[in-house]
Amino acid sequence: MLENKKYTFEDFTPGTVFHLGPYPVSAEEIIAFASEFDPQPMHLDEDAGKQSLLGGLAASGWHTCCMLMRMMIDSFVLDSASQGAPGVDFVQWKKPVLAGDILHGTSTVLSSRTLQSRPGLGLVQMRQEVFNQRDELVAASENPFFVLLRNKGGSA
Amino acid sequence: MLENKKYTFEDFTPGTVFHLGPYPVSAEEIIAFASEFDPQPMHLDEDAGKQSLLGGLAASGWHTCCMLMRMMIDSFVLDSASQGAPGVDFVQWKKPVLAGDILHGTSTVLSSRTLQSRPGLGLVQMRQEVFNQRDELVAASENPFFVLLRNKGGSA
Repeated sequence: MLENKKYTFEDFTPGTVFHLGPYPVSAEEIIAFASEFDPQPMHLDEDAGKQSLLGGLAASGWHTCCMLMRMMIDSFVLDSASQGAPGVDFVQWKKPVLAGDILHGTSTVLSSRTLQSRPGLGLVQMRQEVFNQRDELVAASENPFFVLLRNKGGSA
Repeated sequence: MLENKKYTFEDFTPGTVFHLGPYPVSAEEIIAFASEFDPQPMHLDEDAGKQSLLGGLAASGWHTCCMLMRMMIDSFVLDSASQGAPGVDFVQWKKPVLAGDILHGTSTVLSSRTLQSRPGLGLVQMRQEVFNQRDELVAASENPFFVLLRNKGGSA
């Protein structure tokens, strides 16, 4: 299994940066997501969005998280020996994500350690930043995730 | 606008509990969500899920967040004068959410305060807990959100 993976624990050294995107955000996607999960007026209707603090048809904050996840998937997660995440330390929604925006971002390794309780497994701490096409920070998050070591006997 | 809203800042007193769900989780929904945002094998395929640590076809953690948001929408958000959230303090994914599960939960007001810088607006801190049909905690999160006061001159 590991033979197929480009990135194992050993590759997630602190300071490593993975580039994310581009991810174009369409009005149709904003409305489809909101209709299913977050049907508030500013996520469903251009006029309601313009009248809100968000200033236009704006993606649900959870939609932004999901778009971030998709960008991480396409950048490195599917190429990695990731074993999933136990949660998210925080998400900050800094600016609205509006229909027509094109997102990009970075995932940066903050720290990593092997798990004495689980030989062969490591825990990596990541910070994500998402920007729009004007390079304005729209969202940031940090989370740990579990990843297999290539060398089970090794340590960081 | 406030006339149409059942819940304003004044209603979010610490200790208030809103009940969430039920939300049935189907294999089709798990796969559809994962295909768009988190196409990892354990979220796409029953056999891959069974072979993973998750033990079955399991919802993406972000999907669980979105299902939680939908339960909050249906419980109180659309009936409230909510002005949105600046982010999420944390999300914990405690147990897998599997195809066939039926979720329910609670949103509990932890604290609330008016904003001196923005008369008429309050900030409410909430804790969410999501359980499966065996009353096992599958996810927890905390977040602030902004909400209008009914009485603009009032204070908590």
